[in-house]
Amino acid sequence: MVAEALFDYVLGLADDALILGHRLSEWCGHAPLLEEELALANIGLDLIGQARRLYDYAGAVEGKGRDADGFAYLRDAPAFCNLLLAEQPNGDFAMTIARQFLYAAYATPLWRTMANSGDAALARTAAEARHQASYHLRHAGGWLVRLGDGTAESRSRAQRALDALWPYTGEMFETDDMVMTLAAANVAVDPGMIKPAWDETVDAVLAEATLARPAEGWMQSGGRRGRHSEHLGHILAELQFLQRAYPGATW
Amino acid sequence: MVAEALFDYVLGLADDALILGHRLSEWCGHAPLLEEELALANIGLDLIGQARRLYDYAGAVEGKGRDADGFAYLRDAPAFCNLLLAEQPNGDFAMTIARQFLYAAYATPLWRTMANSGDAALARTAAEARHQASYHLRHAGGWLVRLGDGTAESRSRAQRALDALWPYTGEMFETDDMVMTLAAANVAVDPGMIKPAWDETVDAVLAEATLARPAEGWMQSGGRRGRHSEHLGHILAELQFLQRAYPGATW
Repeated sequence: MVAEALFDYVLGLADDALILGHRLSEWCGHAPLLEEELALANIGLDLIGQARRLYDYAGAVEGKGRDADGFAYLRDAPAFCNLLLAEQPNGDFAMTIARQFLYAAYATPLWRTMANSGDAALARTAAEARHQASYHLRHAGGWLVRLGDGTAESRSRAQRALDALWPYTGEMFETDDMVMTLAAANVAVDPGMIKPAWDETVDAVLAEATLARPAEGWMQSGGRRGRHSEHLGHILAELQFLQRAYPGATW
Repeated sequence: MVAEALFDYVLGLADDALILGHRLSEWCGHAPLLEEELALANIGLDLIGQARRLYDYAGAVEGKGRDADGFAYLRDAPAFCNLLLAEQPNGDFAMTIARQFLYAAYATPLWRTMANSGDAALARTAAEARHQASYHLRHAGGWLVRLGDGTAESRSRAQRALDALWPYTGEMFETDDMVMTLAAANVAVDPGMIKPAWDETVDAVLAEATLARPAEGWMQSGGRRGRHSEHLGHILAELQFLQRAYPGATW
């Protein structure tokens, strides 16, 4: 029962990282500046690396011999349990930056707290991921300030992106019995514990960016339970093509 | 030898219809007017129906038991031999209409001529497809006139679309020994024989649309030999997902 809960929990973290990492990889060859091209690709690779370690751990917990490729390439959309935020389309550069900022502002305290997890594997992954997340946050936050406190055009795009993505932020802080049980055992992080850090980061960066924090309202939900937006199927069609068309292919 | 040439020829025609039909299906739910939503979907269905009949015939010629699904779902990009024009992205509505117009202006005389083919299966397919193509041409031509002879915005978009797609029109009229052998046997249509009809249609519609015929210049090539733009792989990833993920799945 605890193993099942741990499996689901780790898989959710892994899916967040894979899907968001894949979204960033879509910028390859399309970023507005060479420097950004490299930055987005590197952040994407960090996330895919996190996903790989988490999938390997999920496979070990599950004990059925599934490896990272099995999780990434051979599940269909309803078996993915990533946050809906991660699968939202790149849109314009402001949309990608806002999505990255909202996620990194959550991932930073998440991994920082998880580094003290009583689960050794999660603590190890977190110890590396926390430094990556905090760089990702500095990168996305810096851009959000430049866009928000920039031209009228960049400002309106940044605000529009925040407004569009805001309804996807609630899901990051949802809890359920499974997570609370794992948190009580000092394995998982209680999302409620990191919400204040997220709020503080968001408020500080938005203030500097002269952007308005969107009003609280109805929040999207369902990703953690496999109920996804129409975007995930398209992501998987592309992500999984090689392995689906050439089953068992290896490098 | 003749059977191989016939197979390649039929497959090219089938791939044109499938890929262009799939592109049109991408408009589903996104067309600018309900009437257009239905028109584009119906034209797409006509094309996919043509593809199905042609694939079935290609399978019969090949004699290895491949059916339409096998051709559509289980080949990778280099095995497709559609015109590059067919796989170009939808872009805006003007781009889709221009692509459709340029193709239908070719398909109309192609099928009309093919209806007299000495190959009974091709003649049968052509007898149905010629009426569809001529409706598709009327539809796309009518829109091109409205866009070209419309507002400054619609006019500039229509001209931009024509200019962008023009380098993909040369491939429709390429010939090689295989086609010429089949044409000499009254099986295939010599593309040179239908070029005057295409020119006439294009010139007449562009004149009415007050659009400029792009200057002749370097033409793209390669689709018929399996050398595709980066777009085809993305189309196939989406088109083939279900059959690749659930091999052998049927309705």
